[in-house]
Amino acid sequence: MTHPLQALRDRMAEHHIDAYLIPTADFHGSEYVGDHFACRRYVSGFTGSAGTLLVFPTWAGLWTDGRYFLQAEEQLQGSGIRLMKMGQPGVPTIEGFLRSSLQPGQTLGFDGRCVDARTGRRYHQLTRQLGAKIHHQLDLVGEIWPDRPPRSAQPAWLLEEAYAGLSRAEKLRQVRGDLAAQGAEVLLLTCLEDIGWLLNLRGGDIPCTPVVLAYLALTRAGCTLFAHPAAFAPPVAEALEADGVSLRPYEDFYDYAHRLTPDQTVLLDTRRVNTTLLTSIPSEVPVKDRPNPTELRRGVKNPTEQENFRRAHLSDGIALTRFMYWLKTHAGDPGLTELSAAAHLEELRRADPSYLQPSFDPILAAGDHSAVIHYSPTPASDRAIPAQGFLLADTGGHYYTGTTDCTRTYALGPLSDRQKVCYTAVLQGNLALADAAFPAGCPGSVLDYAARRPLWARGLDFNHGTGHGVGYLLSVHEGPQSIRWRSAGGRETPLMPGMVTSNEPGVYFDGDFGIRLENLLLCVEGEPQGFLGFEVLTLTPFDLDAVLPDLLSPRERELLNAYHARVRQAIAPHLSPEEARWLDQATRPV
Amino acid sequence: MTHPLQALRDRMAEHHIDAYLIPTADFHGSEYVGDHFACRRYVSGFTGSAGTLLVFPTWAGLWTDGRYFLQAEEQLQGSGIRLMKMGQPGVPTIEGFLRSSLQPGQTLGFDGRCVDARTGRRYHQLTRQLGAKIHHQLDLVGEIWPDRPPRSAQPAWLLEEAYAGLSRAEKLRQVRGDLAAQGAEVLLLTCLEDIGWLLNLRGGDIPCTPVVLAYLALTRAGCTLFAHPAAFAPPVAEALEADGVSLRPYEDFYDYAHRLTPDQTVLLDTRRVNTTLLTSIPSEVPVKDRPNPTELRRGVKNPTEQENFRRAHLSDGIALTRFMYWLKTHAGDPGLTELSAAAHLEELRRADPSYLQPSFDPILAAGDHSAVIHYSPTPASDRAIPAQGFLLADTGGHYYTGTTDCTRTYALGPLSDRQKVCYTAVLQGNLALADAAFPAGCPGSVLDYAARRPLWARGLDFNHGTGHGVGYLLSVHEGPQSIRWRSAGGRETPLMPGMVTSNEPGVYFDGDFGIRLENLLLCVEGEPQGFLGFEVLTLTPFDLDAVLPDLLSPRERELLNAYHARVRQAIAPHLSPEEARWLDQATRPV
Repeated sequence: MTHPLQALRDRMAEHHIDAYLIPTADFHGSEYVGDHFACRRYVSGFTGSAGTLLVFPTWAGLWTDGRYFLQAEEQLQGSGIRLMKMGQPGVPTIEGFLRSSLQPGQTLGFDGRCVDARTGRRYHQLTRQLGAKIHHQLDLVGEIWPDRPPRSAQPAWLLEEAYAGLSRAEKLRQVRGDLAAQGAEVLLLTCLEDIGWLLNLRGGDIPCTPVVLAYLALTRAGCTLFAHPAAFAPPVAEALEADGVSLRPYEDFYDYAHRLTPDQTVLLDTRRVNTTLLTSIPSEVPVKDRPNPTELRRGVKNPTEQENFRRAHLSDGIALTRFMYWLKTHAGDPGLTELSAAAHLEELRRADPSYLQPSFDPILAAGDHSAVIHYSPTPASDRAIPAQGFLLADTGGHYYTGTTDCTRTYALGPLSDRQKVCYTAVLQGNLALADAAFPAGCPGSVLDYAARRPLWARGLDFNHGTGHGVGYLLSVHEGPQSIRWRSAGGRETPLMPGMVTSNEPGVYFDGDFGIRLENLLLCVEGEPQGFLGFEVLTLTPFDLDAVLPDLLSPRERELLNAYHARVRQAIAPHLSPEEARWLDQATRPV
Repeated sequence: MTHPLQALRDRMAEHHIDAYLIPTADFHGSEYVGDHFACRRYVSGFTGSAGTLLVFPTWAGLWTDGRYFLQAEEQLQGSGIRLMKMGQPGVPTIEGFLRSSLQPGQTLGFDGRCVDARTGRRYHQLTRQLGAKIHHQLDLVGEIWPDRPPRSAQPAWLLEEAYAGLSRAEKLRQVRGDLAAQGAEVLLLTCLEDIGWLLNLRGGDIPCTPVVLAYLALTRAGCTLFAHPAAFAPPVAEALEADGVSLRPYEDFYDYAHRLTPDQTVLLDTRRVNTTLLTSIPSEVPVKDRPNPTELRRGVKNPTEQENFRRAHLSDGIALTRFMYWLKTHAGDPGLTELSAAAHLEELRRADPSYLQPSFDPILAAGDHSAVIHYSPTPASDRAIPAQGFLLADTGGHYYTGTTDCTRTYALGPLSDRQKVCYTAVLQGNLALADAAFPAGCPGSVLDYAARRPLWARGLDFNHGTGHGVGYLLSVHEGPQSIRWRSAGGRETPLMPGMVTSNEPGVYFDGDFGIRLENLLLCVEGEPQGFLGFEVLTLTPFDLDAVLPDLLSPRERELLNAYHARVRQAIAPHLSPEEARWLDQATRPV
């Protein structure tokens, strides 16, 4: 068999393409990418979750970020593909590289379904400035990939109103109201979470994200779902039909867009839709580029979803707390590794009937693995969990009652003073952010200081956001809100009652150890009117073996003790006597 | 004499102007406006420091903000001018009002020298959309104002290098470097503080701001200052000439701009320059709209300026501390009023030979006056200072060694528990912000939470920024940095070592009392490398009579006691024995 890279170059020559771009993306901008869409992996051999391959006839480069430098270096060995380390001095961006290497008259090709419309527009401008051309309707990898996995078409299923809190009909009514308010006739949705939320529909087409591969067109009178018909059992299709949602084949979406008429003002979000969709719409059709109204609506959980989220966190807290006890009593056992511990935690979660699946690949990181922010154990990297140092566990689950995301860092043996100081500082940040009170209208970036102050005061910091939104049985990472000072901007969405956001400060020392402590926060009304605050959803202990109580202020002790009392009260009734005795001790007041 | 409003309308008719706009502005966007430029005051009779008058043939309205609603209501009585309360429900903006009242074919007039270029551009777009016209070369008030005060031409003087820290030649060299780096040939400066900083030149043409009315054009080879020749004594003119700065009459600037040629790329800041300047430049001349390089350069104080700033704050701290003692021992004396106390403080400052003048109109606010954020006593509003409640004093001075701005709120008698809780919360915010450590690159908006947390935690807040930059013997309010969460944005300038920023949390209860505590902070390098922090410049006690020590955390006590020890050590040697004994007590550890 010809090597995929050579096969691709042959096709490029046939199509007169001088540079071909392969991002890591499906047609929906999903965070995780199904096997069918793993074109970059197929051509390059690099298996990381992020990276873009750029192929010229005699040169090829793979751009990826710091998480993957080592892995990519290994996997690209002998491939002839150059590793382009993003963000390193002297390494150009993809656009910068194209600017200096694409010649006038040459053609840049890519599959426009895998490139969001804003990025696509930038490539258009770039090629225009260079006097070069663009061809964005080419799935060249599809042409050369003989055993390409088919597009996933797992059974779609309906999320009951008892879980969703609002009926499909009511959601359609609300979003049609948004459409009218924006003066548009058609809303085009391609983000799978938006579609899943709007239709109370779930599926299994994306790893760790229970959504259905689909597109959606909502008009004031109708609603069409473009998806694989085989995924819809008759009762599901009928339920949709009953609410005026008709099914059409997945592939028909672009044709639908192409047949839109100038009297149909379209609402879409160019950060979300892909280049092929935007260019399929006739140029005479007015397009309003705005955030999808579904984004904010699903970000603000309704009262039923909030109550369910609390239940999911009780379920998750039981599993996590039992896991903590098991881990603290079994660390150092022969055969106990990162992967086997992850499997045990999964088993504990599965004991709850409302549990579905992990909400992301579990991160269990022993020793210096804990310093690698995006580490996730694989059979190749798996290591024993000794009775010493830290284990960092960042895991989460999808329950019918909601989605969880929790990080704890466990002391498995004696710690150094420095390790305890660092743990305590991270804990102080976590407690302070959860304790924040703030006026309505305040965006998350303003509160990031609460989480970072105890670290900054010690000359420490962490190079990731402090908080992301969490979907309800959708993606564990969602917007529109976040808690990151670096993303402060005029258009930042304020925190609003009903939003669920993570609180995950950390600190990392390369080759040594890392600590992260993450709880989910529900934004709630505060006192007096006009003020907001947080309710902590996550219910599992911090590890007092790693805390230096003398460093805590009276207020911090009060917060820590109150949290541990809540955990004890909620979780103890669900534990064995032995576990409960341990929990009593693990949540003792300090 | 015809009433000015009628005289203006007669001129509008002659010039075929259907709506005439009079902002509160000079030609330089200065914060304070000299008498010559007080056109809005002349026509409307309203004397407040902010407001815009819009005149139609049969309707006129004055837009002003909440600070001035009462005053404007009184002063506009019988004038036929409608008060438009900005920000109140149902009150349109000026642009909104024009949009609904200007008819196609009608003409909007204003003096483009008084409207910044960005706002002028918006008026242009607005009239174009309405099919209306614009005439921005009309100083109609100048035509009708018989006894208009002449433009100020106070003597210009040179700031010695011992104060400025850098020679004029070196500054010109640096800014020419900026010009080259930006690929421009001509820098047009109209902001008086930029010009004063660049040329080490000061004057007396703007109230509370020791600057010279002037424009400046800097090229790679030359520098021309457009100003009133009479203001320049021969030694001053010669010193400028020696550094290649030639003088031309003030009025010639627009003609200079009009004669620029297409090979002269211009650098200017459309937030700063006025509409007339921008439209005077021939359309073939390339214009780069960027922040003036002088803005950041003067914002970051050089080592000499920093050392001088410390000296200025010692001088100011002596005066303020003596004032505090005097006030606390004389409150309730017959004849003691807000204005007489302000005069006494001014006298104490004048005792220092390096003192020049107030850096803004002193705010001394007794009783419920303290709740009015922008209150400044006038003979009409002046009231006695009783031996009870609070006196809020927000004052500052220009010294050769720098500029100060300090607010203290003094307890003049027994306080209620609520007053003490509020004072303590404001103090906690002030201490926490001064204590902040943060990584380089962090903008002020991120730190605002430090100052607001103790208030937000009690459901309190204040409706003004927490921090503004402070110029060196220029304007007491300057950019580019600030500390205000509401202005968080992608383009916010980070805090940098050498910047001086105010730290002024407060809390206000209408009709009751107000508290504000303000120190100036110098941004300094921290530990480890890459971290920054603050040095508190202001040296005068907080009022322990208003503090509830039990509410303070151990860290807050430590910060308060350390600050008071610094104040005592620095100030005591300059006091009388009686004052020093009192200071010992006033700065006792809590």
